[in-house]
Amino acid sequence: MQKIVILGSGNVATCIGKSLQQAGIDICQVYSPNVQHAGNLASVLNTKPVSHLWQLITDAHLYLICVSDAAIVPLAQALPFEPNLVAHTSGSIGIETLARFKNYGVFYPLQTFTAGRDINLSEVPFCIEANNANTLQTLNKLAMVLSNKVFEISSAQRQKLHLAAVFANNFVNHFYELAADVLHQNALPFEALKPLLTETLNKAIELGPHKAQTGPARRGDFNVVAQHCALLHTPELEKLYSFVSQSIYQKHHKSNE
Amino acid sequence: MQKIVILGSGNVATCIGKSLQQAGIDICQVYSPNVQHAGNLASVLNTKPVSHLWQLITDAHLYLICVSDAAIVPLAQALPFEPNLVAHTSGSIGIETLARFKNYGVFYPLQTFTAGRDINLSEVPFCIEANNANTLQTLNKLAMVLSNKVFEISSAQRQKLHLAAVFANNFVNHFYELAADVLHQNALPFEALKPLLTETLNKAIELGPHKAQTGPARRGDFNVVAQHCALLHTPELEKLYSFVSQSIYQKHHKSNE
Repeated sequence: MQKIVILGSGNVATCIGKSLQQAGIDICQVYSPNVQHAGNLASVLNTKPVSHLWQLITDAHLYLICVSDAAIVPLAQALPFEPNLVAHTSGSIGIETLARFKNYGVFYPLQTFTAGRDINLSEVPFCIEANNANTLQTLNKLAMVLSNKVFEISSAQRQKLHLAAVFANNFVNHFYELAADVLHQNALPFEALKPLLTETLNKAIELGPHKAQTGPARRGDFNVVAQHCALLHTPELEKLYSFVSQSIYQKHHKSNE
Repeated sequence: MQKIVILGSGNVATCIGKSLQQAGIDICQVYSPNVQHAGNLASVLNTKPVSHLWQLITDAHLYLICVSDAAIVPLAQALPFEPNLVAHTSGSIGIETLARFKNYGVFYPLQTFTAGRDINLSEVPFCIEANNANTLQTLNKLAMVLSNKVFEISSAQRQKLHLAAVFANNFVNHFYELAADVLHQNALPFEALKPLLTETLNKAIELGPHKAQTGPARRGDFNVVAQHCALLHTPELEKLYSFVSQSIYQKHHKSNE
């Protein structure tokens, strides 16, 4: 693997581009239809920006699609030549969206990427998939350059992992936000919860989340559940609280008994 | 504050007892109705176990009640003398449960305690409350020995903080568990999510959880939401997924527009 073209200029493109470059891999072009976006990332990566597909070199070893889910299919359809290898980086888009190419695959990092936040990819699981053994080997090698956790998984499995990531990231963050709201209403900063949040995470990793669970719903303390519901300001939040509590209760009183 | 009696022998009693002792405070007795439990903690703290209330010394400066919520009232009612000061450590029990005493208060650490896990209390918020200024000052001093984050809050506020802790700990852990289930079904270990979970936490602390939110529900990508619902095995989980997604969507499309 020597020459890679990055298609896209967002958070995934930036993080993977930087990490590949740090690993000594040649990012020879960055493409974005937005000239400025292409320029910005190209200057970070010290490479050439292009904003038209016809400007792309045609002999790169890999064209790595790092654009939003909805933009993958149109971009793949518009690519004006047969590339050596094309892969996308999405959790939820099937590999078959790239089936018009000879060699194609998926290169999905199980992580959340945000502008301005540097991510160390070395522990991030890379989930790879390809339409043939050679391509799989190439993507595997490339992933191993970035991370020591590389898994070969199917599109169906990847979709499920993406679902797990939504639970673990978006849903978890939503409850962080609801907790933050309660703290703010009591003039306390969200950061006050950091020791609790850190211990919650460490405990779940060390004991597994099933064993780590505690609290009123876990032990079936419906007095406290009702008390908490009464403190919530909207019927939606009340419903949410009792719904998640039920789910916790069921999980522990089905599987433990 | 010189002599403290710990009433209780569970995780809170153990952690607070150890931390007080490390800070040079004299834990002169540990009480539990269960002789063995009292003995275990007393040997950890190198102090005397007692399993009958009449065995308690009556001149300690503080009797710290570290028992389960349901056991607080019966214990307080059964105390066979007027102590200098009594405080409980619960998030959800009101201060008024101790109103039969002259000096009483609450000493609530906003953290989750688990057998076998040592917790550094120095960053843990201690929420204190008392029935008079002197008692408040005593509890404040004691909390400052353990932590640099001490807040004076009312019983009503504390109940809300406990609600926040349920969101931040139990509910968050529940979504860790649902994510772990999905991973296991795909032969991947839960630990593979650690970089994602750690970044989710750090991002929420640094940006605040509102700004940190991403994902299909946040951006109103109902295709992915429907796709994920279809992957879930039970109507309960499907309902849970769509319910939390709705809550995320509402939160961001109400407050952002």
